[in-house]
Amino acid sequence: MISASINRDTVAGWDAADPLRPFREEFDLPDSVIYLDGNSLGARPKAALPRLLQILDEEWGRDLIAGWTRHDWTGMPERIGTRIAKLIGAGAGEVTVADSTSINLFKALCAARQLAAPRREILAVADDFPTNLHIAQGVARIFPDVRLRILGKAALPAALGPDTAAVMMTQANFRTGELHDMADITARVQRHGALMIWDLSHTAGVLPIALNGCHVDLAVGCGYKYLNGGPGAPAYLFVAERHQTAIDPPLSGWMGHAAPFDFDPVYKPAPGIRRHLAGTPAVLSLAALETGIAIAERADLVLVREKSRRMGELFVARMKPLLESGAFRPGSPAGADQRGSQICFLHADAARLMQRLAQDNVIGDFRPPDVMRFGFAPLYNRYVEVWDAVEMIRKMAG
Amino acid sequence: MISASINRDTVAGWDAADPLRPFREEFDLPDSVIYLDGNSLGARPKAALPRLLQILDEEWGRDLIAGWTRHDWTGMPERIGTRIAKLIGAGAGEVTVADSTSINLFKALCAARQLAAPRREILAVADDFPTNLHIAQGVARIFPDVRLRILGKAALPAALGPDTAAVMMTQANFRTGELHDMADITARVQRHGALMIWDLSHTAGVLPIALNGCHVDLAVGCGYKYLNGGPGAPAYLFVAERHQTAIDPPLSGWMGHAAPFDFDPVYKPAPGIRRHLAGTPAVLSLAALETGIAIAERADLVLVREKSRRMGELFVARMKPLLESGAFRPGSPAGADQRGSQICFLHADAARLMQRLAQDNVIGDFRPPDVMRFGFAPLYNRYVEVWDAVEMIRKMAG
Repeated sequence: MISASINRDTVAGWDAADPLRPFREEFDLPDSVIYLDGNSLGARPKAALPRLLQILDEEWGRDLIAGWTRHDWTGMPERIGTRIAKLIGAGAGEVTVADSTSINLFKALCAARQLAAPRREILAVADDFPTNLHIAQGVARIFPDVRLRILGKAALPAALGPDTAAVMMTQANFRTGELHDMADITARVQRHGALMIWDLSHTAGVLPIALNGCHVDLAVGCGYKYLNGGPGAPAYLFVAERHQTAIDPPLSGWMGHAAPFDFDPVYKPAPGIRRHLAGTPAVLSLAALETGIAIAERADLVLVREKSRRMGELFVARMKPLLESGAFRPGSPAGADQRGSQICFLHADAARLMQRLAQDNVIGDFRPPDVMRFGFAPLYNRYVEVWDAVEMIRKMAG
Repeated sequence: MISASINRDTVAGWDAADPLRPFREEFDLPDSVIYLDGNSLGARPKAALPRLLQILDEEWGRDLIAGWTRHDWTGMPERIGTRIAKLIGAGAGEVTVADSTSINLFKALCAARQLAAPRREILAVADDFPTNLHIAQGVARIFPDVRLRILGKAALPAALGPDTAAVMMTQANFRTGELHDMADITARVQRHGALMIWDLSHTAGVLPIALNGCHVDLAVGCGYKYLNGGPGAPAYLFVAERHQTAIDPPLSGWMGHAAPFDFDPVYKPAPGIRRHLAGTPAVLSLAALETGIAIAERADLVLVREKSRRMGELFVARMKPLLESGAFRPGSPAGADQRGSQICFLHADAARLMQRLAQDNVIGDFRPPDVMRFGFAPLYNRYVEVWDAVEMIRKMAG
């Protein structure tokens, strides 16, 4: 709990003592902005600029087609995948990077359908990120044998049964930040003989994740939030090693072929995770993503999580008068352990308030209908930014 | 026909008089290299560098999440799609840019299956680019009602029948460069009540294409060949306006939703071409691609085609002694009208020869088992480069 008697200096002291403080220097983030939206789009790693210059000038510009081998562009999905694997508790050869989160979720759902056959029900939670539900709806339209059930989280345990093929969930809810218990839910789902698919978009890079420790089957995640990969960065797919050879990829493009440069007209899937690649790797976007990953992998995720929790607690403590007066309602779970790295508050006029905050350079997100959402990216956010952001809200509400 | 009595000066004169000559200045291409591989990876537009700097420094770095609206990142797939549409004879709102060619072909094949139901046969040609066949094989695995038949081009007309749903072809064969007659083939296919899907990867930007003039149903193409969009650039999808509202996208992600930012849990497809988007646009890669498109759209494609034909004829004329001696065999159609913007020769030792050429800075492609392939990108290639490349081959063979 954070004492009511603290002041801005106290909080500035936390920043001064913060072991993660040097990381801020690795991002090109304007000092005029309080950016609490790293859960929508992470800040730009300084290293992205020289890296992209290098790719443009030397690798593409000078070496042209030879870049594919000379600079191992071909190996980027697997190389970056292996670096992401370390951040999410997966092994080398279990993660690949390509396409968007939506496309990777499509691959994961098709894989789960195949692995769990003849089970045919996919369970999803009603307040999952919309694209996840949309993609699952698409899978259910394609495969007449798939039945998609979308239900409240509370109804999930009772819905598990002998026909459940897979359950899909985002580890932290995009709106409320509610953090789901990966170990417990995965175990429950697997006790019923079903597969568990996690979306790590809102948690990777901001808290320790143990995919293999929790015996997860499949996972996806995006590169542009806490991994700081840039707008529309490539996403990643995790497939537990035990499942890999059994899966027929639905999007069976040449980069997933066992030998792409043999130009074999008959598709033969690559032995491992690479079979989930389809088209040619998006080299420029991958290169930017890799600079974000290179920062995250040097951070101690236990410290990152600790700081993120404390930022959330500070936000709540400072919002207390506004919550007690009823001007705002809490939108996130009360305990820091039950939240990811974000917090939200509800207000009938949320859209306008977030706009006004933005005019004052406090950047968060509005989510319909009434959600004011703030994310904490401990690698570049400071405790005083949280302090100042709430001061701004208090002034606006005052 | 090119006279046997020409010399290098004659050819240098053609360059001096070439109306497309100024375009070379728009590419950052080392003068030490004879780059005849623009059909694998186009050269880098000079403008890609400042544009990426702008995106990294200002748009992402300074404006962060606001980039999506302030710099219209959200509108990039449609904006760039409309610019590509003009290069391929399509209308505004008929082309969108996202994902890879493989993924877009998946969308096109699924769309054709739906539009042509209850017809169930998809026809493909045996020497099509492998990823196209691989993706079609994937579609046939997913949909038990789809029957994929892969046959030689000559067998195609007789294979068309009342059960043909769609025919898929690449306009210019990736290996031989053979150019297929879009108008004639599309008309034949449609006379049988089937749909025609063209892959424009090897032709867009290098010859005039009239998708709507030929009444084509669906098309895809890649951004990194003659469109010079960079390694792994996003690809595009064309859907004729008449078909758009009837298609249920299989990869139904949030960016294809009628109102993505309403965060509606139920997928409702956008009215037009946008429904074929799935995940978040890859902004960095799209920005690089747009600089390539911006060059192509200022070129007269009739002149581009004329120069490309002449380059092919020059290559063949200069290869004549080597072909007559039997040292090399022709691998492409004999007439310039029957070829795209590339030419190939067959030699048992092709792999090693291409390597030796590369050591001397003449860059083409080896394609198994015995193909030496050279592409002509009239916006930056010069006639003397063709002359010098063949000189090098003659020396090597001599």
